[in-house]
Amino acid sequence: MLLSKLVCERTKEAPQDAKIKSHILLSRAGFIKQVSNGIYTMTMPCQKMSQKIQAIIRQEMDALDGQEVLFPVVMPREIWETSGRYNSIGSEMVRFKDRADRDMLLGMTHEEAAVHLANHIVSSYNQLPFMIYQLQTKFRDEARSRGGLIRVREFTMKDAYSFHSTKEDMEAYYDRMFDAYYRIFRRIGLKRFIDIKSDSGMMGGSVAHEFMLLTEVGEDSIVLCNDCDYRANMEVAEGVINSPANEIKPLELVFTGEDKTIDEVSARLGISQDLTCKAVVFAVKGNSEEIVIAFTRGDLEINEAKLKKVLLKDIVPYDGGANEILACGNIGPVGLDNKIITVFDKSLENINSLVIGANKAEYHYVGFNFKRDLPGVKFVDVSKTRDGDACPVCGGKLRVENGIEIGNIFQLGTKYTKSMDMTVHGADGGEFHPIMGCYGIGVGRAIASIAQESSDDKGLILPMSVAPWQVHICPLRLDDESVKNKAYELYDDLTKAGVDVLFDDRNAAAGVKFNDADLMGMPIRIVVSPKSLATGEVEITVRATKESQKVAYDKALDVVKDIIEEQMQFLKG
Amino acid sequence: MLLSKLVCERTKEAPQDAKIKSHILLSRAGFIKQVSNGIYTMTMPCQKMSQKIQAIIRQEMDALDGQEVLFPVVMPREIWETSGRYNSIGSEMVRFKDRADRDMLLGMTHEEAAVHLANHIVSSYNQLPFMIYQLQTKFRDEARSRGGLIRVREFTMKDAYSFHSTKEDMEAYYDRMFDAYYRIFRRIGLKRFIDIKSDSGMMGGSVAHEFMLLTEVGEDSIVLCNDCDYRANMEVAEGVINSPANEIKPLELVFTGEDKTIDEVSARLGISQDLTCKAVVFAVKGNSEEIVIAFTRGDLEINEAKLKKVLLKDIVPYDGGANEILACGNIGPVGLDNKIITVFDKSLENINSLVIGANKAEYHYVGFNFKRDLPGVKFVDVSKTRDGDACPVCGGKLRVENGIEIGNIFQLGTKYTKSMDMTVHGADGGEFHPIMGCYGIGVGRAIASIAQESSDDKGLILPMSVAPWQVHICPLRLDDESVKNKAYELYDDLTKAGVDVLFDDRNAAAGVKFNDADLMGMPIRIVVSPKSLATGEVEITVRATKESQKVAYDKALDVVKDIIEEQMQFLKG
Repeated sequence: MLLSKLVCERTKEAPQDAKIKSHILLSRAGFIKQVSNGIYTMTMPCQKMSQKIQAIIRQEMDALDGQEVLFPVVMPREIWETSGRYNSIGSEMVRFKDRADRDMLLGMTHEEAAVHLANHIVSSYNQLPFMIYQLQTKFRDEARSRGGLIRVREFTMKDAYSFHSTKEDMEAYYDRMFDAYYRIFRRIGLKRFIDIKSDSGMMGGSVAHEFMLLTEVGEDSIVLCNDCDYRANMEVAEGVINSPANEIKPLELVFTGEDKTIDEVSARLGISQDLTCKAVVFAVKGNSEEIVIAFTRGDLEINEAKLKKVLLKDIVPYDGGANEILACGNIGPVGLDNKIITVFDKSLENINSLVIGANKAEYHYVGFNFKRDLPGVKFVDVSKTRDGDACPVCGGKLRVENGIEIGNIFQLGTKYTKSMDMTVHGADGGEFHPIMGCYGIGVGRAIASIAQESSDDKGLILPMSVAPWQVHICPLRLDDESVKNKAYELYDDLTKAGVDVLFDDRNAAAGVKFNDADLMGMPIRIVVSPKSLATGEVEITVRATKESQKVAYDKALDVVKDIIEEQMQFLKG
Repeated sequence: MLLSKLVCERTKEAPQDAKIKSHILLSRAGFIKQVSNGIYTMTMPCQKMSQKIQAIIRQEMDALDGQEVLFPVVMPREIWETSGRYNSIGSEMVRFKDRADRDMLLGMTHEEAAVHLANHIVSSYNQLPFMIYQLQTKFRDEARSRGGLIRVREFTMKDAYSFHSTKEDMEAYYDRMFDAYYRIFRRIGLKRFIDIKSDSGMMGGSVAHEFMLLTEVGEDSIVLCNDCDYRANMEVAEGVINSPANEIKPLELVFTGEDKTIDEVSARLGISQDLTCKAVVFAVKGNSEEIVIAFTRGDLEINEAKLKKVLLKDIVPYDGGANEILACGNIGPVGLDNKIITVFDKSLENINSLVIGANKAEYHYVGFNFKRDLPGVKFVDVSKTRDGDACPVCGGKLRVENGIEIGNIFQLGTKYTKSMDMTVHGADGGEFHPIMGCYGIGVGRAIASIAQESSDDKGLILPMSVAPWQVHICPLRLDDESVKNKAYELYDDLTKAGVDVLFDDRNAAAGVKFNDADLMGMPIRIVVSPKSLATGEVEITVRATKESQKVAYDKALDVVKDIIEEQMQFLKG
């Protein structure tokens, strides 16, 4: 490909809304152009990269006996009503009426379509197991699309659905898919990624795993143990928090004036924050009269996801309201209205003498002891795990990292085959609902993840397996006949040998060409210049290591092939 | 691929709405499953076929220096307003509001997206020409989707857009694309297809060609000359109609009673229909008071498309209304209200003595002569060309065939670059709007066209280049160890040699297996049976020719390779 003809503009500046590296670099390198909020056109380099990623995904899915199919983007309301999701999914799903006034929607996921296809076609247990998958455009109307290709509204996704006779068979297949995901991510060149067990959320089912790229710009917080394999989403992570076992003291009401916050009260009383009790007030969603107060240690934060699980109710921040005690600001566990739901974090359980709000303006209690002063309280885990907390498995030190979800797999069970009434005949003559698994990978998200992880201050550093072109030839002084002939000859030779080559055919200065080559990030750069040709050589530079070597012109193809093979060895999966 | 695991149900009956062969066979072979009106899921065989077609299209587009990109399916109203099409396109374009209440649409075509991408990125004439294309899902809310994959609402389409400095350059590129289209259609195995010059319709621009598969189930009528290259859409076809030069007679009012139709009047008067004058009444669309009467020879029909072009106005059938003369039913050219627009077909011009309506109940005139009785009339071509009319080019015999549009190419000119204000710097320092071409092929339509043309009463006969599998192995008596071993061994050997193989691993009767093989239509069938193995042979049958040969087991791979190569020779493009 000749660079001068490539519809792909390299720029010094990124769009104003580009805050993270992958967004900045993919924009600056001209790989993407925004069409609307969260909607992009992919130019040729990005689309080539996408196709190479898709080819790797296809290979791994086919190796698991996957059958590639194509479900529709636009689906009728009816099949989504049988599963119940037409109503349960919110405004992230686009709904519209067609010209005949029928309710239609844009598919964000295709469990319903998969069951719709398999239903009736598959009627006997001996047709199981099977897996069908597709690579297709999806639209999810995200409230806050951000980060370039990280969180978009329209995206290409691989979604796979497997059907099984038994839970054991599904679990065994799930494990194979788990391994395939590791291979896919390694093969496309990702490095710092992990799997974590996760809630299956809107998908239903029980066991699920997310695959996370660890990166500081990730929108998910992940808790990891430095010493063992423990890892969990912040939402469910359980750190061990050891509370100080201080001296028992008498309960005493003390004047604290206008001091209300943990900072203020602990400073005024000269008592450390981990001996104080923090109260956070919520209301049950949809019923602002139903108040929830979560108590935790003064130096900790409430984890709302954990709190919701304890309550089995959705909650929203309390908006103030008319409650007199809550209005005073010094909220404590003693003397609250019976109608208020209280939840106590386990960090409070073993503190012998605690500062608590007195539910009275300008006053707190000191010396509060749960066992003595409020017996019968049940303690649960509703606090956020922090960097440095102890691992619940091995006692080691936990750390918190950010991550981007790059894939997920779910054990769906019979949620969809039951609700959509798909049955097959068993070996015993009876009928049963097949057990499903589903498995997703976002292709655009993968591109952004690679750009995020594999780049430096000069630009992208694309892995050999997915780079749109393996080699970027920069001829310097194309007005020199010898350079021109040799460079184009090399371009032809490499292309004929099956190497993907981008050729900078512009009459531009060396600096301009090198900057573009660094920005676009092809794995191998070859410079052909009057100087190098004087000794019959070209200069070959590996983008990732910045290592350059002068190579005899006739040996260039061999050296390129060797570098490609060497780099592909590391990307074997 | 093992047939027992394939999610693809073969059936004896087609869906009730399936009326044409391609719809019936693709349904019966389990290639497609309807999800909603005009919306299908493609199962693995169909998706594999789609991908092979896409690969051929990609090769041909890349050979024309095409850059594959990916435009969004969902686009914002704004970029479609700059071109004016947000309002000019009707309800076939899906519009919806996103969660932020912005107007969005589903792209049916991507001229706007192409200009949006290229605008600003391409700023100089020396970046021209270039071509960008994509293979992508589109949704068009057809009022009457029909015929399985022939006219659907959701479809995969290749759409390409080229940008040029000069009209000459665009035309030269257009010619290359024209040739590429011929190669594509030949390579995917289509046989009876032609190109015809066409109106560019909603795309704007001037020159355009449609590529048509000639098939009796086609929804377009095409006029072709048996003797020369002349061909045209019925809408614009010009047949030469020679009218009889009969004797001049005096004009005479005759009583015709209740006889009004051409049939009745010509029978009553004993005058042949081609000496009578037919009147067809229309109203201008949106103004039912503005009446148009088109006159043609009694045995001909009015071609509304031609009439609209003459009038430069859209028309609808006249609904009766209050006009007294028109109500009498015997409408003729003499004595009509001046406000009525009259159009006269050229078939009437040379008839010396004509029967016309008298604009009076129960009466006609005979002996009418335009030159004598209504001088100054201008004759134009507004009649439908008929099978057997004379060719306007060579005078040969025309025939009318039906066709399916399988592709189209348009010379767009500057319609979109002007309206969307895309300019580039010219060599002379000035600025200009690039000249565009656009080029489409529907992949699903191609699949249906192949199924329509390449099939028999037993099923599909898929071309080697696009068949999901090249070979279909039918082992008979899999309970026979020898058959089982040899059949699976052959399956492995062929697969390892790079041959795409479907393997019927079911314990089913020979008839069941053969029927499925015929229905699904893979090019080569191999039967491994106790009988054939007794002589160390297998039976190889070519689906297209039904020719069978017994081949030594060890030679099977070679024979298969030879057949593949031979068939691919015919599909070279």
